[in-house]
Amino acid sequence: MKKALRFFEQTKPVTFKYYKPEKKVLGRTMEQQLRFAACYWHSFVWQGLDPFGGDTFQRPWHAVGGDPMKQAEMKADVAFEMFRLLGIPFFSFHDRDIAPEGATLRESNRNVRKIGEIFEKKMRANKVGLLWGTANLFSNRRFMSGAATNPDPEVFAYAAAQVKNVLELTHELGGKNYVLWGGREGYETLLNTDVGRELDQLGRFLSLVVEHKHKIGFKGMILIEPKPAEPTKHQYDYDVATVYGFLKRYGLEKEVKVNIEQNHALLAGHSFEHEICMAHALGIFGSIDMNRGDDQLGWDTDQFPNNLPQMALAMYHILRAGGFKNGGGLNFDAKVRRQSIDPDDLLAAHADAMDLCARALLIAEKMIDDGELAKQLDARYAGWKGKLGREILGGKVSLAQLAKHVEKNNIEPQPRSGRQEKLEALVNRYI
Amino acid sequence: MKKALRFFEQTKPVTFKYYKPEKKVLGRTMEQQLRFAACYWHSFVWQGLDPFGGDTFQRPWHAVGGDPMKQAEMKADVAFEMFRLLGIPFFSFHDRDIAPEGATLRESNRNVRKIGEIFEKKMRANKVGLLWGTANLFSNRRFMSGAATNPDPEVFAYAAAQVKNVLELTHELGGKNYVLWGGREGYETLLNTDVGRELDQLGRFLSLVVEHKHKIGFKGMILIEPKPAEPTKHQYDYDVATVYGFLKRYGLEKEVKVNIEQNHALLAGHSFEHEICMAHALGIFGSIDMNRGDDQLGWDTDQFPNNLPQMALAMYHILRAGGFKNGGGLNFDAKVRRQSIDPDDLLAAHADAMDLCARALLIAEKMIDDGELAKQLDARYAGWKGKLGREILGGKVSLAQLAKHVEKNNIEPQPRSGRQEKLEALVNRYI
Amino acid sequence: MKKALRFFEQTKPVTFKYYKPEKKVLGRTMEQQLRFAACYWHSFVWQGLDPFGGDTFQRPWHAVGGDPMKQAEMKADVAFEMFRLLGIPFFSFHDRDIAPEGATLRESNRNVRKIGEIFEKKMRANKVGLLWGTANLFSNRRFMSGAATNPDPEVFAYAAAQVKNVLELTHELGGKNYVLWGGREGYETLLNTDVGRELDQLGRFLSLVVEHKHKIGFKGMILIEPKPAEPTKHQYDYDVATVYGFLKRYGLEKEVKVNIEQNHALLAGHSFEHEICMAHALGIFGSIDMNRGDDQLGWDTDQFPNNLPQMALAMYHILRAGGFKNGGGLNFDAKVRRQSIDPDDLLAAHADAMDLCARALLIAEKMIDDGELAKQLDARYAGWKGKLGREILGGKVSLAQLAKHVEKNNIEPQPRSGRQEKLEALVNRYI
Amino acid sequence: MKKALRFFEQTKPVTFKYYKPEKKVLGRTMEQQLRFAACYWHSFVWQGLDPFGGDTFQRPWHAVGGDPMKQAEMKADVAFEMFRLLGIPFFSFHDRDIAPEGATLRESNRNVRKIGEIFEKKMRANKVGLLWGTANLFSNRRFMSGAATNPDPEVFAYAAAQVKNVLELTHELGGKNYVLWGGREGYETLLNTDVGRELDQLGRFLSLVVEHKHKIGFKGMILIEPKPAEPTKHQYDYDVATVYGFLKRYGLEKEVKVNIEQNHALLAGHSFEHEICMAHALGIFGSIDMNRGDDQLGWDTDQFPNNLPQMALAMYHILRAGGFKNGGGLNFDAKVRRQSIDPDDLLAAHADAMDLCARALLIAEKMIDDGELAKQLDARYAGWKGKLGREILGGKVSLAQLAKHVEKNNIEPQPRSGRQEKLEALVNRYI
Repeated sequence: MKKALRFFEQTKPVTFKYYKPEKKVLGRTMEQQLRFAACYWHSFVWQGLDPFGGDTFQRPWHAVGGDPMKQAEMKADVAFEMFRLLGIPFFSFHDRDIAPEGATLRESNRNVRKIGEIFEKKMRANKVGLLWGTANLFSNRRFMSGAATNPDPEVFAYAAAQVKNVLELTHELGGKNYVLWGGREGYETLLNTDVGRELDQLGRFLSLVVEHKHKIGFKGMILIEPKPAEPTKHQYDYDVATVYGFLKRYGLEKEVKVNIEQNHALLAGHSFEHEICMAHALGIFGSIDMNRGDDQLGWDTDQFPNNLPQMALAMYHILRAGGFKNGGGLNFDAKVRRQSIDPDDLLAAHADAMDLCARALLIAEKMIDDGELAKQLDARYAGWKGKLGREILGGKVSLAQLAKHVEKNNIEPQPRSGRQEKLEALVNRYI
Repeated sequence: MKKALRFFEQTKPVTFKYYKPEKKVLGRTMEQQLRFAACYWHSFVWQGLDPFGGDTFQRPWHAVGGDPMKQAEMKADVAFEMFRLLGIPFFSFHDRDIAPEGATLRESNRNVRKIGEIFEKKMRANKVGLLWGTANLFSNRRFMSGAATNPDPEVFAYAAAQVKNVLELTHELGGKNYVLWGGREGYETLLNTDVGRELDQLGRFLSLVVEHKHKIGFKGMILIEPKPAEPTKHQYDYDVATVYGFLKRYGLEKEVKVNIEQNHALLAGHSFEHEICMAHALGIFGSIDMNRGDDQLGWDTDQFPNNLPQMALAMYHILRAGGFKNGGGLNFDAKVRRQSIDPDDLLAAHADAMDLCARALLIAEKMIDDGELAKQLDARYAGWKGKLGREILGGKVSLAQLAKHVEKNNIEPQPRSGRQEKLEALVNRYI
Repeated sequence: MKKALRFFEQTKPVTFKYYKPEKKVLGRTMEQQLRFAACYWHSFVWQGLDPFGGDTFQRPWHAVGGDPMKQAEMKADVAFEMFRLLGIPFFSFHDRDIAPEGATLRESNRNVRKIGEIFEKKMRANKVGLLWGTANLFSNRRFMSGAATNPDPEVFAYAAAQVKNVLELTHELGGKNYVLWGGREGYETLLNTDVGRELDQLGRFLSLVVEHKHKIGFKGMILIEPKPAEPTKHQYDYDVATVYGFLKRYGLEKEVKVNIEQNHALLAGHSFEHEICMAHALGIFGSIDMNRGDDQLGWDTDQFPNNLPQMALAMYHILRAGGFKNGGGLNFDAKVRRQSIDPDDLLAAHADAMDLCARALLIAEKMIDDGELAKQLDARYAGWKGKLGREILGGKVSLAQLAKHVEKNNIEPQPRSGRQEKLEALVNRYI
Repeated sequence: MKKALRFFEQTKPVTFKYYKPEKKVLGRTMEQQLRFAACYWHSFVWQGLDPFGGDTFQRPWHAVGGDPMKQAEMKADVAFEMFRLLGIPFFSFHDRDIAPEGATLRESNRNVRKIGEIFEKKMRANKVGLLWGTANLFSNRRFMSGAATNPDPEVFAYAAAQVKNVLELTHELGGKNYVLWGGREGYETLLNTDVGRELDQLGRFLSLVVEHKHKIGFKGMILIEPKPAEPTKHQYDYDVATVYGFLKRYGLEKEVKVNIEQNHALLAGHSFEHEICMAHALGIFGSIDMNRGDDQLGWDTDQFPNNLPQMALAMYHILRAGGFKNGGGLNFDAKVRRQSIDPDDLLAAHADAMDLCARALLIAEKMIDDGELAKQLDARYAGWKGKLGREILGGKVSLAQLAKHVEKNNIEPQPRSGRQEKLEALVNRYI
């Protein structure tokens, strides 16, 4: 524990300007509305590598030649020290983030469980909860051609075994959700890929996970995290709409929700708000990975969020639909830049992001309290509350009847202004 | 008719190097395999406008101040003259392409029907069929905020009336399919848009069209044409996977198929083959719009196809799945560049594209006849034919059983080469 | 004039929350710092067309069959009425925006001059200045293959004649700058393009313009507006760095500056700040076109700016380098969405954008007054003020000497944190 | 050597279908025209890592805990065995590819020189030449904030020392060129970057390299390799046009040329041909990195080339300008996919790429021999050979004179078809 204390220069919990955990916002405390989580991988596992460069961080627990389990413990010490300093209520992890891979899966699982026991104590001691757990089914070379969608069924079985372990650990640690990100469930070239078959494999896998969840009594959500590509050329869970179709295809649309990430939305050609709204419209909104991509770059930069108006709109759409439910939350799937090598850069990045999210929440609260945006939206569709609108949506009129109606009444609808600029200015008034 | 004859310099039917309509390829004639169609809009309606420039083509039927119906007839003369010179078996059109809009919908529809009568004769005389008809629900300002998804239900009704007219005309002309491209079914900003409501409107609209199709006995396919954006910021029919989810949501996945365009695939972040394979995997492949986008540009350039290896792969995936069925075909949704102002540029562009498609077909035939690509694909998934694979996909084993299996047998799957470079070289051997 | 008054519902000058023309910011008034201009084309010429739809605005001066010169006058009335209501100090125009094209260039030029006379009176009466004039060398079909870079030298001559007329009018109206946007100076395909020859043509053209400027005594800047593509596949004035190389090639880097547009920066794969900083670094910063593109779309959307943090950073980089000089300013090259059909949408869009720019200016002022950003930047490069740094940049040491220095002193430089997250949080503190 | 022999299954030199080294093409042998090189890094250094996954290749010389110099020798054995099997005339390397980094730069340099000696023998024995050498100034954390553009001048000095060593080794090995790829010469955020200062640093660095080249008598080209981004957000050597401007700024445009990569062109928003043509137009074409990116992905995939028509056009533009000169060549900066884990995948990928390049060369030869493309290009610009054209480009006429000419003669230029589709079809005829 002392080692952890010495990692960060800062020793006292950070203070915030906007984030007041106990402050009420739209009927819940800020802590309840935001449900912040820090992720294990970016902050404690990543060494600062990029495709053209090596370790810049040189964290003590990455020292070459060290005892992997000891290093895992040191890492856990530092991680919980950061959670304590931030006063962050949740965290999230992959199995491979927290414990080293062993010679066999049995040993790997044992390592994971061992750290899980340490977590259990630290979580209780620090009042930190687990937002979600997940299995890393993409880093090891055995998964290079996919996990559930691998051409080798033994890889499917291996992945299943790994998920079982993490799902159960997540359950035991009181985890709120379990996430599946299909990093290798996709293809590099259609020349060696049977898309239909692989989708069936993926559907089967997900069904097995859902069955097991019920069997062990896990009440949290099963979440799929959409991403269009990277590392694969194409990832099957491309975006929210694609995941929805997939869930419908395999009859899982009531069992599984989505965990939406800003940067993944961007890579799929969407805004963050788009994915949030689409998930709500389709009834599969679950949780979010708050970060940001770079508008000019074509890969997952996973930066800490910093564009206040965009964040406020994301929060607005979440709050409009009732906020996080069923255990969803806001996970910082973000990493400090590889040049931010000071330990306290980690701390500051999280603290500033939390504060900015709180600020965005307060702006979203104003938008909702004021009600003008919602009022204008309702007014725009008011026509659909009339007789014709209700008949159409109620399935009371046929194409032929509608045609007759138009011709008979010589209907010539007149367009009305969409008022986009005024609405955008209205949003800026809340900032 | 004389006017049309004078439009093109060339007066004799074009000759082809590869396209031999009667030549047999994989059990059908080339004509039957390719089912070429020319589209009305790009060749005869577009004046060469782009966002920064005006009419470059100055077609005689676009002369300002002319009698619109006379001009429509002149246009039809030239169009059928082009079909004749090309020996192309099909064409496609929007209602507004072929006849001028009148003061009322009734008058507009009447205009469309009048040209429809002319078509009927010309089609018989020239042995040209209609691949598909469609309604233009995007150009007039009444549709600026959507047709089916408009905030005004009267616009929905108007659109319904317009579709009824074209669907019936398509049926009467022996059209093989009816297409819906939702150019304005999307949004410019989420600030004025209720996505869930609009999707319901769109689902209702499509259901009405399907009902009417059955009512009038139209046997052709109803096709949705996916596109991610442009003119809207977001289009609901984003890509094949999104359309599939939409169809499932509204119970229409057995009634409606997709018409896939290369350029639209590109804009959605996919390859053409991806969209074709995905549609086959999901059981909704219908027809294609053959063209190409520009890899460096972010808008719909609708150029004539010219990349032979890419075209061959597209044809391969279509043939592998049995070729065009249920009336699908290959529509050239392509326009000559606005600098290609000579009438004969139109002719040459189509003729060269047809020939190149034929060449791509012959290459695809070789790939299939040789069988090596298919053999290697099957070999890659061979493991799934074993006991474990069959049990997994057959739903015979649980997550816990798989975990046990892995741990008990100490399974450590060994990856095998994906052989991508070798497969790519194999493809090039056929070219 | 009465007609103009009736166009907008609002009759009293708009009021602003942040924009106080007389308020001092960093030693100049807000009006002097911002130098706002409204552009003629988007607001008064564009009819709401997009590649798939027609006129949505139906402005009275666009009525088919009207007298073009009368319509041009009506348009001018409305334009100046908008300038008056906004209290905007400048405007900008193309020759073809303000007056109709005649049967010959002589007539066209005469039309332009006639409206120029009207402008002259209105400008004096309303105290509105001209930020810049420019010639439309891209809309007419004669320019379809370029103006200066056309394969036909007569088109070059025609373009030269047109520029001469507008440059002189700009001078006479007291215009502050003259802009060249090479919309068609590029190519659609390299197959029909001789890039080297066309660059020489373009260099020659620009030299002629510069010579003429001096000849007539015009003191304003000649500005090139970079854009990478659209309408062409490739535009020679791709981005700031490319324009710099072009100017150097033809010895014009001291004569010509750049007018930078946010949306063009985005299309070139850059942030707005990047282009601003690069222009300052290369000594060619001139003026800006303030607007915004859509991060998800691949074309020029020319929306009104609305992202406050991004705008504040742009203003910061401009102010840091001393603000607008030599007559540069901030032109709203922005258009209301085609669904924003109410006349007052135009007014509101400009007013809100002006106010937001003022707000961004105030934030930038805070950044500069506080000085923390600048201080941290200086500190980062402090090493270069030392002996080694000065010797290197002063050209005092050779490669061999540096190598010796490193080997002899066993130099192993230690990296320091780039502090990106902390700097981003610092920026957000000013907002 | 035996170890190397055992690495590949194949033991006999590969045979080619199209690549016949001695066959004459346009006056030179194929070997002379193509000047193929294999690169060291992708094939022998990369372990198969991507941002989400680890080592898939498990090459024997990457075994953890081995003796680094022994491993470097084993790697060299395998590399030259591959060169032998391919019959490839050249290779290329970074210093860090071939030898391990030592505790000091002196030791690192010594390691490099030691392997250099081994190379010297192997090159002679196998008749393999060095196309170019280069220094890795991006992987080590000391370069995380740039090499020449680092805020710390000691990093500049360190980089200089490293380049000196490799430049001299390159010279001694008879290397044909020396390449500089500024992987970290750019920025992550403008907030901590002084662009102008960094450009000056970069200019100084390049000048030092050029001076040293002359000092040691190295006759090969100094080449800059443009790339817009990745790993940095922005790289100063963005594209060919940007590099040209940079060279002009620092007076180096006659000393330095460019090494153009297909994938880098793509990332900068250009086609490969564009960059080749632009470099020729600006007089700085040097050499190429032949590979390909993925049209749908936003990062450097460095795949082996496989699109024959695109490759043929690239070769056409190179041949049209006289082919490789001054020692330039065609380097395969390409890597097998990380799933292509069989050693012989490496061999096959190179062999197939060489054969496809040869095929592209033969097609380009046809295009040139036939002359139709060139003829049509010349015809398009024929007008510039007339009096007006010559006067304009000769600087004989002013803007005012041109205006007078147009008005007096009532000039109204008539556009001519750009014939793009016909030219594209013409290209396809050669394939």
